[in-house]
Amino acid sequence: MALDKVKLTQPGALKSAAGEICLHLDDETRDNASRRLKSAKGHLEGVLRMLEDPDIYCIDVMKQIKAVQGALTKINEAVLRSHIRDHVATAAQRGDTDQVVDELMEALKYKA
Amino acid sequence: MALDKVKLTQPGALKSAAGEICLHLDDETRDNASRRLKSAKGHLEGVLRMLEDPDIYCIDVMKQIKAVQGALTKINEAVLRSHIRDHVATAAQRGDTDQVVDELMEALKYKA
Amino acid sequence: MALDKVKLTQPGALKSAAGEICLHLDDETRDNASRRLKSAKGHLEGVLRMLEDPDIYCIDVMKQIKAVQGALTKINEAVLRSHIRDHVATAAQRGDTDQVVDELMEALKYKA
Amino acid sequence: MALDKVKLTQPGALKSAAGEICLHLDDETRDNASRRLKSAKGHLEGVLRMLEDPDIYCIDVMKQIKAVQGALTKINEAVLRSHIRDHVATAAQRGDTDQVVDELMEALKYKA
Repeated sequence: MALDKVKLTQPGALKSAAGEICLHLDDETRDNASRRLKSAKGHLEGVLRMLEDPDIYCIDVMKQIKAVQGALTKINEAVLRSHIRDHVATAAQRGDTDQVVDELMEALKYKA
Repeated sequence: MALDKVKLTQPGALKSAAGEICLHLDDETRDNASRRLKSAKGHLEGVLRMLEDPDIYCIDVMKQIKAVQGALTKINEAVLRSHIRDHVATAAQRGDTDQVVDELMEALKYKA
Repeated sequence: MALDKVKLTQPGALKSAAGEICLHLDDETRDNASRRLKSAKGHLEGVLRMLEDPDIYCIDVMKQIKAVQGALTKINEAVLRSHIRDHVATAAQRGDTDQVVDELMEALKYKA
Repeated sequence: MALDKVKLTQPGALKSAAGEICLHLDDETRDNASRRLKSAKGHLEGVLRMLEDPDIYCIDVMKQIKAVQGALTKINEAVLRSHIRDHVATAAQRGDTDQVVDELMEALKYKA
């Protein structure tokens, strides 16, 4: 809270008053993810309306859910790309390579 | 529309006034999918709120989006199971095996 | 063993002397899978030779292994298609729908 | 070819006589990948022998092929981990971040 945050030269990193570097999602990727997530939410609401129809066909439901998942995958790819660029590629400079690698491998593991 | 639908002995199939068999998602699976989809939508709204925080960390966003995808995958598995049971396993009886197999292979292909 | 097997009218099914139906992979799909699996094995041997080079680049290894996995996925899709056509679509006729559905859902789950 | 290669302090990087840095898979990961790939090849040969049996069941073939794919996925994860540690985490130091990120995103895309 009430931290005196200073933008570092590398995007997606802040230095707190205590001098600790805080990694965070860069603003452009965050706005973009937010916009596309709202669209995915609208798509999901469409699937919910489909499910009110007692005659709906299984395959049509499956296709729509997969389309939503495809949109989420694209959002995650954009977040992943900015994470690798801003935080993974700079890990050796910060000296936290082991932690950053473990964290990334863990996040990639659960690729839905 | 004003069809004189008759429930057939096999769940998830209706016969229209014209005698055409209409395959559809069985009611229990449909209600269940709807309930779980509402929960996934709530989760997605939570991710949208996360993205309002300028200090949010990429890895945390990725994990939450993957969790939503995992929930969607489970919903699709339940729909797939009821589709195979009600429509694929009965295809030889109805005589539409080729069409049902093509359709299922197509739907499985896009596994997100 | 020395069973008096009789080809049933549906491909991929034999009747043993005891009258038990034995489901099996149809010959054409089996030959095709065998041929393509030999090719995937050749590809894998190529990756093994790549790995003898001390200057080999990680990304090149990853791409080749993924190419082998893609070939295996295609083989499995062909086996899956013939399984659904010959054994799943006929399950209601044989009366073993529950077992066939459980087995298929289990097999699809481990989609690598 | 007749390059005067010099091991750099970071593992998995060589400097050619021309002063160009050559990224390569570190020896331990390479040996490990090679050993596990030989085992996957043996498994694949086992599946080929299975396919000689005219009574083989589709689901059993699918399970074995998926097991081979699981082994290949684990090998690729080990190669990926060493690539991220040795080459991606050091990209900002070398100054080739854009290229390394594009290459990695491309490689992750084709996750089989």
